[in-house]
Amino acid sequence: MTLTQSFNMVLFGGTGDLVLRKLLPALYQCHRAGQLAAGGRIFCLGRRDYSQAQYLQQAEEKARQFVPSADWSDEVWASYASRLEYVKVDAEQAADYAGLKAVLDARAAEVTVYYLSTSPELFTGICQNLAAQDMNGPHTRVVLEKPLGHDLQSSNDINQAVGQYFQERQIYRIDHYLGKESVQNLMALRFGNALFDPLWRREWIRDVQITIAEEVGIEKRGGFYDHTGALRDMVQNHLLQLLCFVAMEPPHSLDSDAIRDEKLKVLRALVPYSPEEVSTRTVRGQYRAGASRGQPAVGYLQEEGVPADSRTETFVALRCEVANWRWAGVPFFLRTGKRMADRLAEIVINFRDVPHQIFPTSMGMSTPNKLVIRLQPDEHMKLYFLAKVPGDAMRLQQVSLDLDFGEQFAARRAEAYERLLLDAIRGNLALFVRQDELEQAWRWVEPIMTAWEQDGNPPKPYTAGTWGPAASSALLSRDGLAWHEEV
Amino acid sequence: MTLTQSFNMVLFGGTGDLVLRKLLPALYQCHRAGQLAAGGRIFCLGRRDYSQAQYLQQAEEKARQFVPSADWSDEVWASYASRLEYVKVDAEQAADYAGLKAVLDARAAEVTVYYLSTSPELFTGICQNLAAQDMNGPHTRVVLEKPLGHDLQSSNDINQAVGQYFQERQIYRIDHYLGKESVQNLMALRFGNALFDPLWRREWIRDVQITIAEEVGIEKRGGFYDHTGALRDMVQNHLLQLLCFVAMEPPHSLDSDAIRDEKLKVLRALVPYSPEEVSTRTVRGQYRAGASRGQPAVGYLQEEGVPADSRTETFVALRCEVANWRWAGVPFFLRTGKRMADRLAEIVINFRDVPHQIFPTSMGMSTPNKLVIRLQPDEHMKLYFLAKVPGDAMRLQQVSLDLDFGEQFAARRAEAYERLLLDAIRGNLALFVRQDELEQAWRWVEPIMTAWEQDGNPPKPYTAGTWGPAASSALLSRDGLAWHEEV
Repeated sequence: MTLTQSFNMVLFGGTGDLVLRKLLPALYQCHRAGQLAAGGRIFCLGRRDYSQAQYLQQAEEKARQFVPSADWSDEVWASYASRLEYVKVDAEQAADYAGLKAVLDARAAEVTVYYLSTSPELFTGICQNLAAQDMNGPHTRVVLEKPLGHDLQSSNDINQAVGQYFQERQIYRIDHYLGKESVQNLMALRFGNALFDPLWRREWIRDVQITIAEEVGIEKRGGFYDHTGALRDMVQNHLLQLLCFVAMEPPHSLDSDAIRDEKLKVLRALVPYSPEEVSTRTVRGQYRAGASRGQPAVGYLQEEGVPADSRTETFVALRCEVANWRWAGVPFFLRTGKRMADRLAEIVINFRDVPHQIFPTSMGMSTPNKLVIRLQPDEHMKLYFLAKVPGDAMRLQQVSLDLDFGEQFAARRAEAYERLLLDAIRGNLALFVRQDELEQAWRWVEPIMTAWEQDGNPPKPYTAGTWGPAASSALLSRDGLAWHEEV
Repeated sequence: MTLTQSFNMVLFGGTGDLVLRKLLPALYQCHRAGQLAAGGRIFCLGRRDYSQAQYLQQAEEKARQFVPSADWSDEVWASYASRLEYVKVDAEQAADYAGLKAVLDARAAEVTVYYLSTSPELFTGICQNLAAQDMNGPHTRVVLEKPLGHDLQSSNDINQAVGQYFQERQIYRIDHYLGKESVQNLMALRFGNALFDPLWRREWIRDVQITIAEEVGIEKRGGFYDHTGALRDMVQNHLLQLLCFVAMEPPHSLDSDAIRDEKLKVLRALVPYSPEEVSTRTVRGQYRAGASRGQPAVGYLQEEGVPADSRTETFVALRCEVANWRWAGVPFFLRTGKRMADRLAEIVINFRDVPHQIFPTSMGMSTPNKLVIRLQPDEHMKLYFLAKVPGDAMRLQQVSLDLDFGEQFAARRAEAYERLLLDAIRGNLALFVRQDELEQAWRWVEPIMTAWEQDGNPPKPYTAGTWGPAASSALLSRDGLAWHEEV
């Protein structure tokens, strides 16, 4: 538990949901754990005419909802709140930045982090305005929330614009899935132990499945979502990033660029789809009316803000391949969707079966070994394998082992945003996405978008509250495989 | 849980300790678990003039001591006791066998098992006497307890003599360590799962350590022990057998000879010692006065029945190698002794460290992975590896995983003798030692005995209640290694 250096954390979008529900509660936890330097201050920016007291009241109200009650303490909040300062700044008004500068200059700090929790259209303007006031010096960092662009071109445009004012090593592109404990556990498991190394390759792994399933629909975000769709919203960033952590070669060190170099190599090794392959290796779906948690749920086309003839996908399944020595021939299945049967994010590593079965089936089913890394709703790692049932006879049964030991350590898991905010303050870029990674991810995804646009077919319908269209299962059954289901 | 066929179990030495303390309690457990065919009968042979009632009283008295009280039931004992029959037979009197034959003939059974729980000097005579009465037909089996000989020649003599009357497939040479649940778990782990297969070889295993340590001294067996010593008593049989189960190639099936063929290959691949190597790769020790469980303990030379100038070893440590493609260069350390610091039997597989360490030592110690298969005093399998401590920071810590799941199944572990007795009835030879294995084990051990006899040095003294002479640690430290100690 190392203390950060002194810092100014500047939250653009300070009155928005992300700040109030996620960032301030996360920083509260860091404060409570004693991880924040005593002088570290948090500036919450907004256009509204809040007094400091008004803002703090609102911040506390939300924090009480989003901090687990066991972790809440009025005293801790009071000492935490003394770090918070509301600053009235219209991010689009260049004139407001001089005032911001004056506020920040009054608080000397080793590092200043600008967290752009705003619409991406504002990113360039904010960076430009900061630069105009010389607020982009070497000890400043800028954190960018997704979505970073709509396609390769618009993503490059943002990166190029921000890159005029901040150097790559100052830019923290956040993907909160990478802040999850499970991703860290995966790194520790793979690279802290010799045990998994010989297994972690095509000779022993049959397939990899990565799922991010949401139970919710698009909620009130129809206007946004209909221009985005599941491929851009989830695959291009979260799913491909998780794939990178599974498939990457061991980095030579934990240095940020050592890790990101290896991730980039994975993205570059992803086999691009030809237009024909898009039709056989991808499945897109759109939910129809159904049920969610026992309540009726409307179809996507009936959602507010969605055109009645929309062809936006709310579900994607992909079969992709990483064409390198380690992974050639191993299918990686990615899947994400809204209005799924469950809220679930997990990585499943299916090992090959034993090459030759010496235990007759009468001694128990033969089930290949499996490693499940769960990121949501809970975080855990489970290894499934066959063990002997105690007793005289040789009878095998599948059992699961917990590999993450939450209870054994009696230590609290950090939430993703806590880790990522601390990393941004500490200057650790390892869990943030580098420009070339982002570009390569778009480059790989774009032919899918193009082919879908051109083929003229609508997404396949699926009933809300199910695991997506039947074609998703068919994608695996062609390889003789099936999506993992909890046993 | 399959029922045996109908059987006659004939226990020679029926009034001896092994029968009363181990075999009858084990058969009670099998009976209680419903594993014994209804018609199965147990004949307890002895020279003494017991009435059936007298014998049963004695058997029950002992069984009450040696069956865990939770498993005891007067009713179950009563129904079990109706299987038992005391038969007065002097094993050395050929004339007595006609009576035994009459008793057995009156009880038709699919299989008859003669369990020779007697001094090995009687084995040949008993077999001869059985054969003389035509009691060695194809549906009979003979179970031989150790020690099977004193050296290669005497072992071969016994095997040859018994082999005149029984075929090899009728001969069950018992090594009760092989009946332990842990040995079965090891088989399931290695051959039921793909997970361990790539690891189980020289590339990933640094060394293997097999220990059978006893806290007791030689008890009242000075006369016997001084002619035997730890090498003959423990290494030649138990330790080499356990080594075989660790090192064997996957058998093509669970067929008894498929398994024993693979074990034999291991014994044949054991590098024989030259006389010079005996002095550098073996350590023999003899305990001096010390303490055991807080009580003073006399030295070996002061034990009853031991000559004051005895050079018999009560401790052995060996460094051996299995010269084949899988194991070349991996040291196997074997260790056994009396009056050790603890009662302990375990197999420790030390994996190599990761080839390159990316986690700085500040993130936690780097400890190579380890698999510990414990056979005594409790039975378990534990995998030691590094996991991330939950929380924001990347901090690694060694944790251990239970791989045997006793509790998960809520099934009772079978004691070694239960499994082996059932196997003898069922005709499963897999966990019994074949003649060629026994011969090969003696062949490998004999040069050590010869070199020790010829070098004229006494065993190295060690204090009772310790882990043996310092030379035992030195044997490993020359390879930069150390004996495993529980963390």
